[in-house]
Amino acid sequence: MKKIRLFTPGPCSVPEEVLLEMARPFEHHRTDWFKGYMKHATEQLQVVMQTKNDVLIITGSGTAAGEAAIVGCNPPGSKLLTIEGGKFGQRWGEIAEQFGIDVHRHEIEWGTAIDPAWIENYLQQDPAITAVMLTHSETSTGTLCDLETIGRIVRKAGKLLLVDAITSAGALPLKPDDWGVDVVITGAQKSLMLPPGLGFVSVSARAWDIIENNRAQPAYYLNLSKARASGAKHDTPFTPAHLMVRGLCKALDMLVEEGMENVWKRVASMAAATRTAGAAIGLEVFSKRPSDSVTAFSCPPGIKVSDIRAQLKERFGIQSAGGQDHLKGKIFRIGHMGYMDTMDSLVAIGALEQVLYKLGHKFELGAGLTAAQKVFAERS
Amino acid sequence: MKKIRLFTPGPCSVPEEVLLEMARPFEHHRTDWFKGYMKHATEQLQVVMQTKNDVLIITGSGTAAGEAAIVGCNPPGSKLLTIEGGKFGQRWGEIAEQFGIDVHRHEIEWGTAIDPAWIENYLQQDPAITAVMLTHSETSTGTLCDLETIGRIVRKAGKLLLVDAITSAGALPLKPDDWGVDVVITGAQKSLMLPPGLGFVSVSARAWDIIENNRAQPAYYLNLSKARASGAKHDTPFTPAHLMVRGLCKALDMLVEEGMENVWKRVASMAAATRTAGAAIGLEVFSKRPSDSVTAFSCPPGIKVSDIRAQLKERFGIQSAGGQDHLKGKIFRIGHMGYMDTMDSLVAIGALEQVLYKLGHKFELGAGLTAAQKVFAERS
Repeated sequence: MKKIRLFTPGPCSVPEEVLLEMARPFEHHRTDWFKGYMKHATEQLQVVMQTKNDVLIITGSGTAAGEAAIVGCNPPGSKLLTIEGGKFGQRWGEIAEQFGIDVHRHEIEWGTAIDPAWIENYLQQDPAITAVMLTHSETSTGTLCDLETIGRIVRKAGKLLLVDAITSAGALPLKPDDWGVDVVITGAQKSLMLPPGLGFVSVSARAWDIIENNRAQPAYYLNLSKARASGAKHDTPFTPAHLMVRGLCKALDMLVEEGMENVWKRVASMAAATRTAGAAIGLEVFSKRPSDSVTAFSCPPGIKVSDIRAQLKERFGIQSAGGQDHLKGKIFRIGHMGYMDTMDSLVAIGALEQVLYKLGHKFELGAGLTAAQKVFAERS
Repeated sequence: MKKIRLFTPGPCSVPEEVLLEMARPFEHHRTDWFKGYMKHATEQLQVVMQTKNDVLIITGSGTAAGEAAIVGCNPPGSKLLTIEGGKFGQRWGEIAEQFGIDVHRHEIEWGTAIDPAWIENYLQQDPAITAVMLTHSETSTGTLCDLETIGRIVRKAGKLLLVDAITSAGALPLKPDDWGVDVVITGAQKSLMLPPGLGFVSVSARAWDIIENNRAQPAYYLNLSKARASGAKHDTPFTPAHLMVRGLCKALDMLVEEGMENVWKRVASMAAATRTAGAAIGLEVFSKRPSDSVTAFSCPPGIKVSDIRAQLKERFGIQSAGGQDHLKGKIFRIGHMGYMDTMDSLVAIGALEQVLYKLGHKFELGAGLTAAQKVFAERS
């Protein structure tokens, strides 16, 4: 028997009914049939992303969605501040540079979250800044920033706030409209329980004012104004991955039926249990401010990340993630997103115990599972 | 009973085994498992697209693939000539303008093909031109240009030739390497028998010389250099729609097994039969130089395109296409691409006879089918 168990922080497990939904007989995309799916998907995305703003569906990855937002929101004369505390934070700064946008790229130590007060100070020091972009949950380090406080600061300063919520939307509490977030970017293959291939962008009225006046932006396929104009008719400017939109409807219905507060609680329980279990078996969480959507553990001394990951996969079919760039070989990551519940976390913890035991790590077998069980019992 | 029959010129019918392939349990995309699919898909794309050049897979529509090629191949100082004889030809000129590329947009009458001699003359008149972009099979009008002759002319003039082969690659004879085509763009949802969501670009060594030196191009997600660097490792720079790549392997295997010459013959038979049948029931082909991948018929006087299309759909589940822009209400289109054979064309012709008969068009019932049968018999 060889089960596949996706504990990677995206792509995540997809419900079988979503996969099969995409395999059913289908119509053309310029039809009322497809417009019905577009309308439904957009409405349900507003629930899952917790916003009343327009939500646009882009055929592409989360990076494509982020590029559309950055290029659209930063016309000539604007200046962007990016906060970069990991692989994904860096990407937004790279995009801005590639498009010749004036950008101040602020690097912070990987595994730490930006201090909101730093942003407040910086915005006072550099009044040329017109927009701030940051990553809510930095997937590469498993770190969450205090977006609510940051949102209040950036809104008060009158700047646009763009947020990469690729591993937070649909997994963690996120209230863009209450918190003053103008643009939220996310992708299909994380908490939204779809295979990769779609990106999503929500856009506030304030952001639209900038984007709609940015007519000369170097963007055609990834042009938010075009997506908005078509979206108003439940349509897309270019041929969409329409079967994925159909699968998306099914996945979003499942999330909405569960209720977003319950989804967040489920994810928080899995993360708390995994962290507590880790502590019980001698594993340290890498991040100084852990995100609940993915847990990054520092690799115990004398053990190789590659051995942990290979054994998890070979013996138990568990796919995990390693570290990226300078964290390669130093951390490994277990996701809590997608079609996954607390019992799946038990599987991850149990398998991790087996693997670490075999690799000579010293701890009491069962201690992780026992600790996790207590967390689940307390929270249910 | 309500069957869905896709005779639209994309999305086209997808084999059930391809749809189910994408619904099977899957792994993460940064694995040897996925690299195996990427390697296989790339190799089979070279067979189907008939080129030894690199073929890149982009998560997005054909427009995304075209944008990547246009932006990559036209650095500052270059000048592009676009030939626009329909909706899709226009799109490439629009993209060039949106990105501030110096472009001469040459419009021709919709339904006609560019005269290769015109291109030859123009390239002599305007030596600033560095690249030419045109649409091989213009889907909006059902028109094919003489790409072989054009390719020879453009190569002789030492210019780069970019070709939108979205409704020709995999359907019609196309020999980019022999004909001097540098960049071929196509999409998943036409002859490649996949749902929409992937675009493909093949790039010659001459084109790479331009693209790789165009480091400041306003492209990140749709950056061909990035796709090439990752592609060399059977990987992608950004999260791909990896289940679609898996489905693609299945679809490409089916095409390669059939043999491209046989695929072209199958498509040509369907097109010839449809045109001949049309003539037998009093329908005129709109194009002056018809493409075999999609037939555009002019609507007979006194009958509405909307009625033809509505009846085809309501009575027989057949989805067809209308005209776009100024051709709206004037033509309707029947595709010959995707998972479709000669007997499917009989269905389209038979249904068309039923619909036209009911709408009062005068012709002999069965004449279209009889004419088609003769074409099939002669060609088999």
